[in-house]
Amino acid sequence: MLARLFAPRTTVHAHCDLPCGVYDPAQARIEAESVKGIMEKYASNDDPVFRTRALVIKEERAELVKHHLWVLWTDYFKPPHFEQYPHLHQLFNEATKLAGTAGAKGSVDVAKAEDLLSKIDEISKIFWETKQG
Amino acid sequence: MLARLFAPRTTVHAHCDLPCGVYDPAQARIEAESVKGIMEKYASNDDPVFRTRALVIKEERAELVKHHLWVLWTDYFKPPHFEQYPHLHQLFNEATKLAGTAGAKGSVDVAKAEDLLSKIDEISKIFWETKQG
Amino acid sequence: MLARLFAPRTTVHAHCDLPCGVYDPAQARIEAESVKGIMEKYASNDDPVFRTRALVIKEERAELVKHHLWVLWTDYFKPPHFEQYPHLHQLFNEATKLAGTAGAKGSVDVAKAEDLLSKIDEISKIFWETKQG
Amino acid sequence: MLARLFAPRTTVHAHCDLPCGVYDPAQARIEAESVKGIMEKYASNDDPVFRTRALVIKEERAELVKHHLWVLWTDYFKPPHFEQYPHLHQLFNEATKLAGTAGAKGSVDVAKAEDLLSKIDEISKIFWETKQG
Amino acid sequence: MLARLFAPRTTVHAHCDLPCGVYDPAQARIEAESVKGIMEKYASNDDPVFRTRALVIKEERAELVKHHLWVLWTDYFKPPHFEQYPHLHQLFNEATKLAGTAGAKGSVDVAKAEDLLSKIDEISKIFWETKQG
Amino acid sequence: MLARLFAPRTTVHAHCDLPCGVYDPAQARIEAESVKGIMEKYASNDDPVFRTRALVIKEERAELVKHHLWVLWTDYFKPPHFEQYPHLHQLFNEATKLAGTAGAKGSVDVAKAEDLLSKIDEISKIFWETKQG
Repeated sequence: MLARLFAPRTTVHAHCDLPCGVYDPAQARIEAESVKGIMEKYASNDDPVFRTRALVIKEERAELVKHHLWVLWTDYFKPPHFEQYPHLHQLFNEATKLAGTAGAKGSVDVAKAEDLLSKIDEISKIFWETKQG
Repeated sequence: MLARLFAPRTTVHAHCDLPCGVYDPAQARIEAESVKGIMEKYASNDDPVFRTRALVIKEERAELVKHHLWVLWTDYFKPPHFEQYPHLHQLFNEATKLAGTAGAKGSVDVAKAEDLLSKIDEISKIFWETKQG
Repeated sequence: MLARLFAPRTTVHAHCDLPCGVYDPAQARIEAESVKGIMEKYASNDDPVFRTRALVIKEERAELVKHHLWVLWTDYFKPPHFEQYPHLHQLFNEATKLAGTAGAKGSVDVAKAEDLLSKIDEISKIFWETKQG
Repeated sequence: MLARLFAPRTTVHAHCDLPCGVYDPAQARIEAESVKGIMEKYASNDDPVFRTRALVIKEERAELVKHHLWVLWTDYFKPPHFEQYPHLHQLFNEATKLAGTAGAKGSVDVAKAEDLLSKIDEISKIFWETKQG
Repeated sequence: MLARLFAPRTTVHAHCDLPCGVYDPAQARIEAESVKGIMEKYASNDDPVFRTRALVIKEERAELVKHHLWVLWTDYFKPPHFEQYPHLHQLFNEATKLAGTAGAKGSVDVAKAEDLLSKIDEISKIFWETKQG
Repeated sequence: MLARLFAPRTTVHAHCDLPCGVYDPAQARIEAESVKGIMEKYASNDDPVFRTRALVIKEERAELVKHHLWVLWTDYFKPPHFEQYPHLHQLFNEATKLAGTAGAKGSVDVAKAEDLLSKIDEISKIFWETKQG
């Protein structure tokens, strides 16, 4: 993966903004794994203190998933990418919505976390395709 | 504006996630006004300490503009909205990109801040239309 | 409201500090609306996961109310304002205390959120008077 | 100082809000020492990278001074304290304003940091008096 | 304590990094007192809203304890210190682990907070010894 | 890498604390790549606005490197690991110190960022060994 990080930038980066040009969907994925891990532990432990702490921490990790996805969507992806992948906007919107795990019912459902990981996987696949463009 | 905040939610909110249902593009706009104000003061003061502080603070405010826009895009707007306003995804993407004010050249250009305010205005117009739907 | 934001600054701003001169009590009000919205949803949903998430998020929004009020009190209001409105210090102190919603009993009481909104309204009224001074 | 932290709470704490009842002006003071230390190093080093980093970090520490003072003002001090010390509101307002070190000219002036430390000292003195009440 | 803060730096500081050279274990201790205070109040109040808020806030304060300890360990202590106090690495690691209060069972146990305070005390003792070196 | 994330935990995790058990040194590495990228861009662009923004952003990313390393050191690694890798404490201390890139002179030196990446690589190697233990 290190090799890929150093791969030459495609032309859409020509006028890249400052920060650094380093993006990696792994950041969102690792936090989403964490969300899933928390849900699994929540399901198997009914101590109320544990469960409250789990929900507090899950809320934070989920917020980080959203943040990392938003940064990719705004800072990494450029107009030519959105032309090439017309569903990319919707994909990001669905992924960040899933990270927010709306309804109270769904919010400790491990399957929701797996859906989120799948979406991030789709984004990741597109991301690495654009890096190799 | 208070009246509008208490206006009945449209049906797209039916399955609204927890937080509260309170969103307002004014949050992004106020921070963007701040970005513009900083750029104006930057332009008219060449004290180096002042200018460095201005850039530090502008970076923070711009980050907040992005955050507030991302929240609207992910948490407030629902699939029916994106169907009704097909350019909404792109509008948000352009607005958040402008908030990031990529290139070093543009980053203290007051006109860039005005472009950002116009985009937020467009978003705001759509937002209030959907509230009255 | 945009018009008012661009209104000429009164003389107390003559030595205005850097940031930008853009302040707006709407920032505190929107977060306080959010606190109120959360309390309402809390009251009408007894799912424990939902309720814990509600309390976590409410704690954050309340913190933001406090922050926005503190910034107004410290950064916007200047000595002449405090002379003109002798109860302004106390008003801000009461408003931020309300945002902290001290006692466990009161902390999910919607009436407390309404008190908070009233205090912010009083501050807002004074704020806009000073802008038109 | 540990002894004082464990001293019995005065009656104004009777309806103390949750968090913990632990407050200490040392938190504001330590950050203000840091602001002063940064200014001293800024004055004696004209490397531009060093100076920019100094200003970035000073901005953060100053923000923390403000935050710790705001928390004391809102969360620790209660109405009876403000009656007993009628200038306490103004003292806090002046201290937080100094922490913000408004004008560009003053913002790297070590004397400003010393003024800030004096104000915090005054607050600290009152604080410990109220603890022993 | 003020006197000590201004005491001449020992030689290990010769190449001190920018920030300011101001460190004080009191920052970690005050947050740890707060964690202990919260646990005590948690133990004596079984209102579920109160308890959830207590856990949310405790999580934040514990995170701050960790942060202040990490900063001391990385930014204040230098190689000669670690040679002089060979158990210092482990001491910090144990203290930060305690601040994280791993297992659900232990996480509202006041004794755990007291252990944490003892560890911070040990660190504090070493810290002040190195200042006087 | 996904495979490895799901590999069975070694026994030292038996009493694993809540959060989730998901750790990955990639988080520190990605931020460190970012620090390096910023330094490279800094070196090749002498626009003062660009350079100030670069330093502001680098300071943030470096702080994140430190944070991710501290979390690994405190939350992931357990006493048996430190016995097995006696230099692990020092390795983390050196890596976080490098992330802080003390002196003004070194702080925009790309070689320093490469040293940091090497240290993170060493940590990463140990991390994955302990996962496969």
